[in-house]
This record gives sequence, structure tokens and C-alpha cells, in this order.
Amino acid sequence: MGRVTERRKILRLREGYEPSTRPDALAAEEPLEIRVNGEPLTVTMRTPGHDFDLVAGLMTAEGLARATEDLVSLRYCAGTDADGQNTYNVVDAQLRRSGGVPASLHRNLLTTSACGLCGRETVDSIRNQVPWDLTEDQLRVAPEVLYGLPDALREAQRVFDSTGGLHAAGLFTADGRLLCAREDVGRHNAVDKVVGWALREGLLPLRGHVLMVSGRASFELTQKAAMAGIPLLAAVSAPSSLAVDLADELGLTLVGFLRGRNANVYAGFERIS
Amino acid sequence: MGRVTERRKILRLREGYEPSTRPDALAAEEPLEIRVNGEPLTVTMRTPGHDFDLVAGLMTAEGLARATEDLVSLRYCAGTDADGQNTYNVVDAQLRRSGGVPASLHRNLLTTSACGLCGRETVDSIRNQVPWDLTEDQLRVAPEVLYGLPDALREAQRVFDSTGGLHAAGLFTADGRLLCAREDVGRHNAVDKVVGWALREGLLPLRGHVLMVSGRASFELTQKAAMAGIPLLAAVSAPSSLAVDLADELGLTLVGFLRGRNANVYAGFERIS
Repeated sequence: MGRVTERRKILRLREGYEPSTRPDALAAEEPLEIRVNGEPLTVTMRTPGHDFDLVAGLMTAEGLARATEDLVSLRYCAGTDADGQNTYNVVDAQLRRSGGVPASLHRNLLTTSACGLCGRETVDSIRNQVPWDLTEDQLRVAPEVLYGLPDALREAQRVFDSTGGLHAAGLFTADGRLLCAREDVGRHNAVDKVVGWALREGLLPLRGHVLMVSGRASFELTQKAAMAGIPLLAAVSAPSSLAVDLADELGLTLVGFLRGRNANVYAGFERIS
Repeated sequence: MGRVTERRKILRLREGYEPSTRPDALAAEEPLEIRVNGEPLTVTMRTPGHDFDLVAGLMTAEGLARATEDLVSLRYCAGTDADGQNTYNVVDAQLRRSGGVPASLHRNLLTTSACGLCGRETVDSIRNQVPWDLTEDQLRVAPEVLYGLPDALREAQRVFDSTGGLHAAGLFTADGRLLCAREDVGRHNAVDKVVGWALREGLLPLRGHVLMVSGRASFELTQKAAMAGIPLLAAVSAPSSLAVDLADELGLTLVGFLRGRNANVYAGFERIS
């Protein structure tokens, strides 16, 4: 518990300073498996803490609880890591209504490609699914090229200009040329649209390419980049702890807080030349 | 098609000006049902456009396609609205691999509480699930109170200050007193944590309360507010078209771009006094 932030070593690029490594605090992300009357319902990626509130709120949103007494109990179940420690990543909600999960709910919940154990096991399970070896990718990107990506992506975002309401993802060559940009209310959709364009163009795996996203770099987006064979993911905002762990494990370079002539590199430092 | 933006009438609050109504462009949000070899896989909320890319990219992310030839065809299926028009909200992907959806995928995909037809039908289906009548809520909020919410929420966000990486949700009284604030890497989780706290405290339905979120107001967050009986949802950033439609339908007041002493009101104007 108390894992709301985690510390990792990063490479800082700041205008007017030499690149330097230093520890930095990241928002923690871990999978939480939610069970209803003992039956697995869903896995959500969340920041640990207030887990019982999270499960109670999800029961409300899904119409399973509308008063305190609808929720008989909430407890952490056995969910142990390789060392036999409870991961506190599995919660069972006992509802007053009998039976397990209504059938209608099984396709109605937010879930992600994660197991319900712990970040470590989730990273391992994803690693086994990725069909490309990113560690072999010889991509090198100059900081100058990185600094140009946000503006290039922003220029391609025509809809954002009129609504202020869309996420964007852009696929770039190693020298910063934009190949494809897509916008969507969901940031995972924007990335899917870019990767799907590349698949249909016969460009997979996307060796030597760079993916830039307008928001944060979650575990899920890092996974999507890896499944497309992309060796470098750059984001305008912060990555989560699990995104960094997955990037580290796969050999993917992860850049965050890419703004102006500043950036943080969280994994795969060697590709920034 | 071509529904990337939609126009709605909003109430503009700008410092130094009288409140005024005017049309505004919103990012469009519609459900997309994705089928694999004819079998329904998931429903995702997306901005229409580049739907085939979206489906192709999702197939890549889920390990079902890694080369162009893995994808035999993509097509819009019959999915018609009440007038018999094709909604272009159902896409079937024919994969080279035979059979339907691998069993392991059924609990691994991003889905939401939406049907795969169209925004109109999705709004109708949610309306039937909400157990409270929000139109009866007599809440009135002064613009001055609204303007104070972002700072109050920001002050409660201790983790954001160290990581820059967390979404926040806060529950307020009608006069702007913060009752509960929660942070998470997932914005839907932050809202679930606040609503779950209220459920466990015996406070549901949250009549006369205000929910403030740090990011955008999606369809999903609007639904979560309504299921908790909250009559006013305020967001720092933009709402989607479907969030506004749902708020309109339910009688929920929706405020966006709440920054400094400016705000846009998208639905339920009468509660801003």
C-alpha cells in the first residue's frame, strides 16, 4: 500500500544544461482485479489507494449498488506475487443481491490487457505477447528532432483547433517527418488509428519510427506502441510507473514532458543521441 | 460520416461580459461496435472517421494482426437507427485466421456502457438505467462558486504536485465546500473513488452536490455522475458531443472549460444563477 508514487531514474534534457540523470517521482499504476460475490468481473489499471472506494463507485456506476446497505462487504482477496506477498490488487465486493455478475455487464466494463496480480506479472504477460524484438532497433534520435515533434503534431490537429477536445497521435520518421496523424476523443483510439493505418499500408513492424501522443503515456499506450514494433514513444505529459517498467522491459525508449526544448527520458536512454 | 465535430448551443460566462448564448463546436463522440469474423467483440466510444484504421490498429494491439494480409477485409455492417439509416457505427473485420474472437480477449478489451448502434440509442439506454430524476434537483450555483472549484481541487491534489501525472475528481457542496477529493492515473477511476466514498458514507443520491474533474467531460463521466444522482458536473477541459446530449436528456448541468473566471455551460443552464 501507499504506492501512490514511485521513483525511477530519468535522463533530463533541459535547455542550456548538459543532459543529466536524476531520480524522479512517477504516478503509480497497478492492475486491480474486481470480483463481485467471488466472481471475477474486470481488471482496471489504477493508482493504488482508496481501492474500496473505487470498487464501491464502480458498483454504483454499473447499477449494482445505490445505497450503503447494497454493499455487504469489501475485502482484499488472496492475490500473491512471486514472493508470496499479498499484492493488494484483488478486491471482492459482496453485494446484497445474490448471484454473481449479471451477464449484461460482462461486455460493459472498462478493462485493459492486464492480469489481476501485480504490475510485475502484467509486464511479463505483455512481454510474451509482443512479436518483435525492440532491443535490436538501431534508431537514434537527436534532441533537436524530438523538440520539433509537438509543433508538427499540433499543426496536423485541425479539429482540436475548433473544439479543444481531441487527443492526437502522430507517426514520425527518425528525422522528424510526420507520416500519419489521427485525432479522437479517446487517446487509445488515436493511437489505434495510427497503427491501423500503418498495418493497412504494409509498414509493420514500424522499426526506426517514433510515435508521439498529445497526452500522458499510460501502460496501455506503451503496449500498443510495442505491438506495432515502434521503438520510441514520446508524450507531452507524464508517464505512469507501469508504462516506464514495460518500456524498460521491452527495450522501448519512453520520452515524457516533451515541451519546448525540454524533455524527460524514462527508458531506453541510448537512443537519444 | 464527416461527424468529427458537432455544434451545440452553449451559455458563455466571460469575465467582464454579460452571460450570452451562442453556438459552439464540440468533438464528436459515437459508439463503434467492432466485430471479428462476424462475432461482436467490443464497443468503444470514438470520434467518427478513420474507423477502418481504428479497427485495424486494435487488431494489432490485441495480437490478431501483424501484417496487412492478416486482415482480409473491413466493412460497415447493417446497424441502422430508428429511421432505417445506416449509422456507420458497426465494423466487421474479417481475419485470415478462422473462427471468432479468442476467449482470452473477451475480458481484455476497452469497452464502455454503450450499445453499438448510435449516440441516440446509447443515450436512451443509459437514461433507462439512471435510478434518480435529476430534473427535480433544485440546485442553483453562482458563477463565483464555480470559479473557485478548480483551485480548491488543485490544492487537494498532493500527488499531482510531485508527478504531474494524475487526474483528479472532487465532490463539492452547492456553496463550494470540498467534501472528498481523489486522484488516479485513470480519470474514470478518480470519479469512481469519489462516488464510492459517498456510497459508503450513505450520501447517495448526491442531490444538490457538484462534481468537478480535472480533465475532459466524456460520455462515461457524465453517466457516472448521473448514476450517483449528481446534478452538476464541471470540467477543466472540453466535453464531447455525447456527454452534452446525455446531460441534456437527463437534466444534468454540464460545465466545461472552467478556467479562471470563465466557463462554458453546455446543458442545464437554469442551475447557473
